[in-house]
Amino acid sequence: MKPLNAIRLEPIGVVQTKASLDDLKHGTATSKIVIKKEFSKGLDGIGGFSHLFVLFWMHKTSASEKMILKVHPRHRLYLPKQGVFATRTQFRPNSIGLTVVKLVRRAGNTLTVKGLDAYEGTPVLDLKPYDPWDRLGKIHVPAWWKKLEKEKERNESASHIG
Amino acid sequence: MKPLNAIRLEPIGVVQTKASLDDLKHGTATSKIVIKKEFSKGLDGIGGFSHLFVLFWMHKTSASEKMILKVHPRHRLYLPKQGVFATRTQFRPNSIGLTVVKLVRRAGNTLTVKGLDAYEGTPVLDLKPYDPWDRLGKIHVPAWWKKLEKEKERNESASHIG
Repeated sequence: MKPLNAIRLEPIGVVQTKASLDDLKHGTATSKIVIKKEFSKGLDGIGGFSHLFVLFWMHKTSASEKMILKVHPRHRLYLPKQGVFATRTQFRPNSIGLTVVKLVRRAGNTLTVKGLDAYEGTPVLDLKPYDPWDRLGKIHVPAWWKKLEKEKERNESASHIG
Repeated sequence: MKPLNAIRLEPIGVVQTKASLDDLKHGTATSKIVIKKEFSKGLDGIGGFSHLFVLFWMHKTSASEKMILKVHPRHRLYLPKQGVFATRTQFRPNSIGLTVVKLVRRAGNTLTVKGLDAYEGTPVLDLKPYDPWDRLGKIHVPAWWKKLEKEKERNESASHIG
């Protein structure tokens, strides 16, 4: 496998949000994604989709955190550690975050979205439309995941922060 | 916005597949993802999920293709060009591919998956479990997307190649 050390990711934009950590965690945050002017044309037609995948660079993750390979799901110590690829933790070798958001509005190079669990100032790497093929029928998830689901109250959606 | 030129992506593994281009396109390919031994522990528990997001580096995209900002959806010239962020085209500033796959089996550091539209030798950047929050209820997509959907026959799922 050839090394990809030469790969440079270029942020296409940045997250602007004043949402509380609680709102970020619970998928109730409203945020703006401001796309660089040079990429603005790439947004044409995006308003036809109600939901998007946002890929972002989790810039607050430290080098040592990227080395972690097993975590307690959402920091719940009573749950056995799982491999990072079996969770959505921010600790992973490549700090790419992935979240499905609702697209509220596009105005020029600014998108208003709901449900993004990314901090103010987070570099955005890519946007992709969510389409019916992404909406699976029958799926299954492990018992620990269901346990965490039961813990949640009233939150209409969830996030991968904390 | 600070430049991220120093970001280095490290492949966590590689795609191995003998599937035909047709199978890749139609979501019917069976592929292996071989994870580097050093990251193998990160897979622990992944078998509890039936489906995964695979993030991969579309290494065949050229520098000039990355500059493209509008494309005819899936090369259909009769459809008006859309911004690349409104499509799943491989032409985009950061060549990160995203596909939902069915996890067939984990054996050591090798995953067998179904539905991955990535070529043999594609570097894999991340794996994330698909969970019920990723399965949206009501969504909408533009008219051109529905037109393409009607074109498809018999394919149980779809891909973002060609």
